[in-house]
Amino acid sequence: MQTSQLASSPVASRAAPAWKRIDRDACARRIARAIKKLSAPPFTSGSAGVTRYAFTEAYMLALGYLSDQLNDLGFAVKLDPVGNLIARNCPSSSAAVGLGSHCDSVRGGGSYDGTLGVLAAIEVARLSYEQGYDLPLQVISWVEEEASGFGEMLLGSRLATGWIDERALRTKVRSLDDGQSFFDHAREAGLEPERASEASSAIENLTAWIELHIEQGRVLEDAGEQFGVVEAIAGYVHADIEIHGQPDHAGATPMGLRRDAAIVAAQFMLELERLAIEAAGGSVATVGEITLDPGAINIIPGRARLSLDVRAPIDTTVSSIIEKATTTADELALSRGLQAIYRERQRMPSAALAPTVVKAIERSVEATGAPWRRMMSGAAHDTMCIASHVPSAMLFVPCRHGISHSPREYASPADAALGVEVLLNTVMELSKPGGSR
Amino acid sequence: MQTSQLASSPVASRAAPAWKRIDRDACARRIARAIKKLSAPPFTSGSAGVTRYAFTEAYMLALGYLSDQLNDLGFAVKLDPVGNLIARNCPSSSAAVGLGSHCDSVRGGGSYDGTLGVLAAIEVARLSYEQGYDLPLQVISWVEEEASGFGEMLLGSRLATGWIDERALRTKVRSLDDGQSFFDHAREAGLEPERASEASSAIENLTAWIELHIEQGRVLEDAGEQFGVVEAIAGYVHADIEIHGQPDHAGATPMGLRRDAAIVAAQFMLELERLAIEAAGGSVATVGEITLDPGAINIIPGRARLSLDVRAPIDTTVSSIIEKATTTADELALSRGLQAIYRERQRMPSAALAPTVVKAIERSVEATGAPWRRMMSGAAHDTMCIASHVPSAMLFVPCRHGISHSPREYASPADAALGVEVLLNTVMELSKPGGSR
Repeated sequence: MQTSQLASSPVASRAAPAWKRIDRDACARRIARAIKKLSAPPFTSGSAGVTRYAFTEAYMLALGYLSDQLNDLGFAVKLDPVGNLIARNCPSSSAAVGLGSHCDSVRGGGSYDGTLGVLAAIEVARLSYEQGYDLPLQVISWVEEEASGFGEMLLGSRLATGWIDERALRTKVRSLDDGQSFFDHAREAGLEPERASEASSAIENLTAWIELHIEQGRVLEDAGEQFGVVEAIAGYVHADIEIHGQPDHAGATPMGLRRDAAIVAAQFMLELERLAIEAAGGSVATVGEITLDPGAINIIPGRARLSLDVRAPIDTTVSSIIEKATTTADELALSRGLQAIYRERQRMPSAALAPTVVKAIERSVEATGAPWRRMMSGAAHDTMCIASHVPSAMLFVPCRHGISHSPREYASPADAALGVEVLLNTVMELSKPGGSR
Repeated sequence: MQTSQLASSPVASRAAPAWKRIDRDACARRIARAIKKLSAPPFTSGSAGVTRYAFTEAYMLALGYLSDQLNDLGFAVKLDPVGNLIARNCPSSSAAVGLGSHCDSVRGGGSYDGTLGVLAAIEVARLSYEQGYDLPLQVISWVEEEASGFGEMLLGSRLATGWIDERALRTKVRSLDDGQSFFDHAREAGLEPERASEASSAIENLTAWIELHIEQGRVLEDAGEQFGVVEAIAGYVHADIEIHGQPDHAGATPMGLRRDAAIVAAQFMLELERLAIEAAGGSVATVGEITLDPGAINIIPGRARLSLDVRAPIDTTVSSIIEKATTTADELALSRGLQAIYRERQRMPSAALAPTVVKAIERSVEATGAPWRRMMSGAAHDTMCIASHVPSAMLFVPCRHGISHSPREYASPADAALGVEVLLNTVMELSKPGGSR
């Protein structure tokens, strides 16, 4: 990849005198080593790609690995009552800059999504410790960002902002594997979810929050750019559509007498695709899950459930797609004598990020001399929650062919190391008195 | 249901002097009691409807229940090496008429599909025993007709005809639950599947085979008819279509850059429906199973698998639909940069049933005075295998609204009792010297 060579070439020509240049090669090697380690058993539950979600053995071991690293760098590390990993190198009552991401993964996902951001934060912590910069830092790995364990995205950060509460953890948020509540699983993991409201302390006394993440798209790669400075994150709706028809014998029921839930589901999927394309402006809509009931080769499906993931930069566009989609589902179902039911799982508004933090990152990025752009994130991130309470921004690094949520996901450690240098210098600027104004 | 009253009304006006009239009310009560018993735990594994498939505890207990009944009626009962229940009231070397069906069920299915035919056979056995008719009978309950345990329909009867062999049981035929082979499950159930070739003895020394079954359609109900005498069974193909695309992040991948396997699957399903409607003449096509991989709300599906069930009265029509469907799958996939793979599970030719047996049933049916028709079966039955070796036919009784493979399946015990009277008199005619000529 052309851009990755930038990392070891002397591009920091525009850097200010105070610019801290790091040993990028050594940093890249450390990141590559940690990524490799965390991509293999026992840190992943699956064989193809990385599978790691809340409270699994793989997940708890990954938290242990990250904690050990942070302990060695003079951080006090704890899991909060719901499982967010919080590490501080200064008293919790004093101001700090927050850095981090998440280390859970989708099932059969890649090695870089989330994990790279936590490792980059640890690298900044390491440089601060080893070089004696003594930056006031709080490193966070948010629990259950990907919805892979419990079907609800951004769980740890939404608990921190109070957008979801203990009651939901006891009732609504349930394991996709065994149906048991998040609450019970958290208890089994030795946490105290009954103190979920205390998760808010994770975002107290933070002067700024920055999350480094792979782009998960191919805008940077296509443009040959090294960094995306994220100024906004698209909102989304997660929901389910259930189609209720009539299970019947596949051999004995003529085509004209069927009430086949799968056929209505198929029609709906094509209409949903059309709605997203029609809405344009970066709107996307996806059906990632389908369940047919009873789900046998010789039975006409009596029931179909489809998951819906609808996103757009403008919240009213998301609402409009959802509204048209539910009307369409009703109409398609009714026209064949079936019924459609819409159930919303989660609705997140889009998030505008903090201009002060965005600009601080931009100054550092510019100082590296590498090509970059200001951009919007189509993917959701914990930062979209944190941004409502703490001045926040994100730094994107390229990922190959834009592939993510796949075992084929790849990002260059050299790119990440250059990102670490940007983070370090941004934190230094933000940590000066009045730095995040 | 109007037709059910016929059973206890004196309609046997056209009966010949030798006609044996049974106590229809008592017979209906016994059938209703047995159906009720076999529809509740421990004879079903599920809570909604009946779930009972090969080698589950529910299945083995159902076989035990049926065996006890047959033992009490002077039958020698055994499970053959693959699990077919074979019961004889005469030496295995002498000629007998075969009666029966299957007692396994689809997952979440009804109480009558298959089981009613076995119970009707047992009722004939009971009448022969109690009235001293001494009819030479062989009652069979074929194993794994529904493909619910191992994904392969008509397994017991195909083993009897040698259309599937021991090697397939060791390799290809695997549990949908745990992936273990049919062979290993049969061993665990105490059977000797290494002697699978001996399953052929089930169809030796049979002068005729008759299977009573619910219609699983609504032709009889709509026409107000009491019986369908089946002269042919539609052929079918069972297969899978796999669509291979690219898993990607649902938020960060623009609509125009996706290779979404689920969208191609949806397009294919609608085309398949169109092909079946276009082929007409009783052709049907069904997608009953869909699996998306990785199957998460926020990941564009990289792979989709669809099951295919295509049936038609004429074998060339089935072949033509399958050929067009695979071409369509290829074209749809290619046009979006994906790939489609077709894998056939099973292809069964249509079966013409034996005119001698069909006519013998028709004479008995006619004698009852009840309205009836000669018809074709859209559903597959073990009889389509047996018919290749033994003169065979089927007797359909109505089921409410044509609903089958559903907990809402219902058939009147009074209708079944009248069917038992037809079976008894047909067997008497066929058991006379030269009866099945």
